[in-house]
Amino acid sequence: MSLLASVRPNGRTLCSSLEKSLRRCRSYTTRSENSRVIFSGIQPTGIPHLGNFLGALLNWVRLQNDAKANDKLLFSIVGWHALTLPQDPRMLSAARREMLAVLLAIGLDPNRSIIFFQEDNSHHAELAWVFNCMTPMGWLKRMTTWKSRLATSRNANDESEVDESLLNAGLFTYPVLQAADILLYKTTHVPVGEDQQQHIELCRDIADTFNRTYKGSTPFFVLPEYMITRTPRVLSLKDPTAKMSKSSPDQMSRILLTDPPDLIKAKIRRAVTDSIVGVTYDPQGRPGAANLLTILAACTGEDITDVAARYHDKGHGHLKDDVTEAVEEMLREPRREFERIKGEKEYLASIAVIGATKARELSEVTMAQVRSTLGLI
Amino acid sequence: MSLLASVRPNGRTLCSSLEKSLRRCRSYTTRSENSRVIFSGIQPTGIPHLGNFLGALLNWVRLQNDAKANDKLLFSIVGWHALTLPQDPRMLSAARREMLAVLLAIGLDPNRSIIFFQEDNSHHAELAWVFNCMTPMGWLKRMTTWKSRLATSRNANDESEVDESLLNAGLFTYPVLQAADILLYKTTHVPVGEDQQQHIELCRDIADTFNRTYKGSTPFFVLPEYMITRTPRVLSLKDPTAKMSKSSPDQMSRILLTDPPDLIKAKIRRAVTDSIVGVTYDPQGRPGAANLLTILAACTGEDITDVAARYHDKGHGHLKDDVTEAVEEMLREPRREFERIKGEKEYLASIAVIGATKARELSEVTMAQVRSTLGLI
Repeated sequence: MSLLASVRPNGRTLCSSLEKSLRRCRSYTTRSENSRVIFSGIQPTGIPHLGNFLGALLNWVRLQNDAKANDKLLFSIVGWHALTLPQDPRMLSAARREMLAVLLAIGLDPNRSIIFFQEDNSHHAELAWVFNCMTPMGWLKRMTTWKSRLATSRNANDESEVDESLLNAGLFTYPVLQAADILLYKTTHVPVGEDQQQHIELCRDIADTFNRTYKGSTPFFVLPEYMITRTPRVLSLKDPTAKMSKSSPDQMSRILLTDPPDLIKAKIRRAVTDSIVGVTYDPQGRPGAANLLTILAACTGEDITDVAARYHDKGHGHLKDDVTEAVEEMLREPRREFERIKGEKEYLASIAVIGATKARELSEVTMAQVRSTLGLI
Repeated sequence: MSLLASVRPNGRTLCSSLEKSLRRCRSYTTRSENSRVIFSGIQPTGIPHLGNFLGALLNWVRLQNDAKANDKLLFSIVGWHALTLPQDPRMLSAARREMLAVLLAIGLDPNRSIIFFQEDNSHHAELAWVFNCMTPMGWLKRMTTWKSRLATSRNANDESEVDESLLNAGLFTYPVLQAADILLYKTTHVPVGEDQQQHIELCRDIADTFNRTYKGSTPFFVLPEYMITRTPRVLSLKDPTAKMSKSSPDQMSRILLTDPPDLIKAKIRRAVTDSIVGVTYDPQGRPGAANLLTILAACTGEDITDVAARYHDKGHGHLKDDVTEAVEEMLREPRREFERIKGEKEYLASIAVIGATKARELSEVTMAQVRSTLGLI
C-alpha cells in the first residue's frame, strides 16, 4: 500500500470526477450481498468505446464505490483471452498499457480494487487446464459466443458467414479459461452483460462438477452469481441496427473514451438518423434517433421516455447538440486523467506489479487447495 | 548441486546397477546429434510394468548415460496429463512419489538429468494456452489417441465402444499440452513410442505455425525430432494379443518393476502359452510363446531368432524358467533401490524441488521470449 501511495503521481481521488455520472448509473440486480468477491475482466484490444463504458466499466466503478469494507473486488485485463483472435504484438502491448491507464482514469482505485493483468498470474492457465479435464466437449459445443466473436473479428455480416474451420482450440475453450478466471478467487459475484450469461452458467456447472467429484465437508467452490446490469445497449452511430463495436472498420461509428471534444462533436453530428420531422423513441422504425436518445438518457440518468418527450417537437440537430454536450461532460475527466497517466510507464508498471502480487496471493490459496484436492502434491 | 549431494541418502552411482541391461539395450535412430535438448514425460499412474520399462524407461537411462556434456535432458512426471482421465486423489498423490522413486531407482541421475513434476512448473499450462490459440480444431480432431486412451481406461474391448460423448476438453487438447511440454525447453529430440508419432508431428506443426506467425531473424522454435526407439512390444501375459497394460483388471497380466521374485515367478509360470510341443517364434499363431521370447531377448540383448532357436526343442516350462531368471536379474537392482528410497519422503521432495527449479529456470527464458513475441508485456 505504501509503495502504491508513493508511486502515484498525485493524491487526488480519481473517482470523484465521475461521481455525478455514477449516481445516475442504473442499479444492478444480485441475489446475495454478504461478503462478496467480485470479479470481472476486459480484453486489452483497444481503447474502450462509449458502449463499453456505459455497459461495463462505469458499473465496475460503481461496484467499487458502493462496496462494503469486507468485499473483495478484482478487475483483470485478460490478455490470454485476446490471443483467441489474431493480434498484432506491438498493438497488443500498447493496448494492455492503455487499458490499465483507462481503468485508473475512470476511477478504479488500486487501493480498493485488485487491478491486474491476467497473464501476470499463471494460476489462471493452471486452473483452466484442471477445468478442461472435467468439462465435456458437449458443454463447449453448446457455447455460441465464439461464432459471434469470429464474425465480429472478420467483419462478417452474419454468424452464418463463419464456420468451425476458422475455430482454434483457444477460442473453443475460452469459456473454460473464463471459469478459471472467476473461480480462482472463489468469486461470488460476476458483473456481466447478457451475452455472457451462458458462460457464467458454464462456470457454475464446472464448479458444481468439481464440488461433486471432490466432495468435502463443504463445497469447494461457491457457485458464483451473475449480476446482470441494466445497461443501455449503445448502437453504432453509422449503422444503428448493430451494436457499437471496436472492430467496425468505420471509426466514425463509435466514440472512444479518449476522443477529444471536437471529434466527439463530429462523430455525433454525422450519426445516421432519418428525415422524419421531430424526434420520437422508436428503436425499430427510427433506430438512429433512438440510439441518440439512449445515449443521452444514460448520460443524464433520466428515463428514456422523459428524454424523448422533451425532443418531440425538436429537430435532430438540437438532439445531437445535447448528446454531444452530455457525452463530452461525462468523458471529460476520464480523458484528462487518461492523458495524464498514459505515458507514466513506470507508474503503470508498478500498479500492475502490485495488482498481480495481490491477485497471486489470493489465488495461491485456492490453487494450493486445488492441488491437494486433486492429489497433485 | 550441493543441496542435492547433501540430501542424497548415499553416494552410490545408481545407474551402475543397470549397466549390463543398458549395454544390451537396442539403439535408437536420430537425425542429428549436436547439442541436443531431450525431453520426455511419463504419467504418474502406477508403478511401471515391464513393457514401460523395456519400452521407454530403459531408453531414458541409456540416453542419459550416452549424452554428451552439453546435452540437456529433461524427464517429467506429467500429472496434468493424468487428469485427463478420472483419478483417485490419494492414489495419484502416492503414484507421483512412487514414479519419482522409480526414475531414480532405474538410474536417472538428478545431477545429470532434470527430473521434475510437470505441475511444479506452471509455464507448461501457460504455453499450452498460447498454443491452443494457434491450433485449429481440425488438427486435434485428427488425433486418434484419445480414443485408445478412453478405451483402455474403460477396459473396452475396442475403440468403437467409446465415443465423443465421453470426451472432455482436457483429453481432446492434451496433444497441445504435450507440445508445450516439449517446446517449453526448446527441445530438439523427443524419444517416443510409435503411437505418439502423430503428437510429435502436431507439435512440429504448432512450432512451425508459431514461427511463421511471428517471423524473426531466426525461427523461434527448433522443430523437434522424434527418436523412435526400436523397443520390444511386450504383451499381456494373460492375453498375448493385447499390449501389457497397467489398466488391465488382471494383475497377473503384467509384471511390475517392483514385483518381488516370487511374484515374477508366479506371473510368468501362469503366462498363457499353447499346447504345441516345442517353442517357435510365431507372433500370429503362437503369441504367448512369442511374447516370452520377446521378453527374454530384450533382457539378454540377443536377437530374437537366436533365442528362439535355442528353445526349438525345449518345453514352455524351460522357457518360462529362463524368462523368470532374466527378468528377475534385470529388475533386481531397480527394485532394491526403489524399496530403499520410496519411503524417503524428504529426499524425494528435495529432488523434486531441485528438478522444478532447474526446469523453471530454463522455461522462464522461453516464456519471457514468448510473452515478448506475443506482445504480452
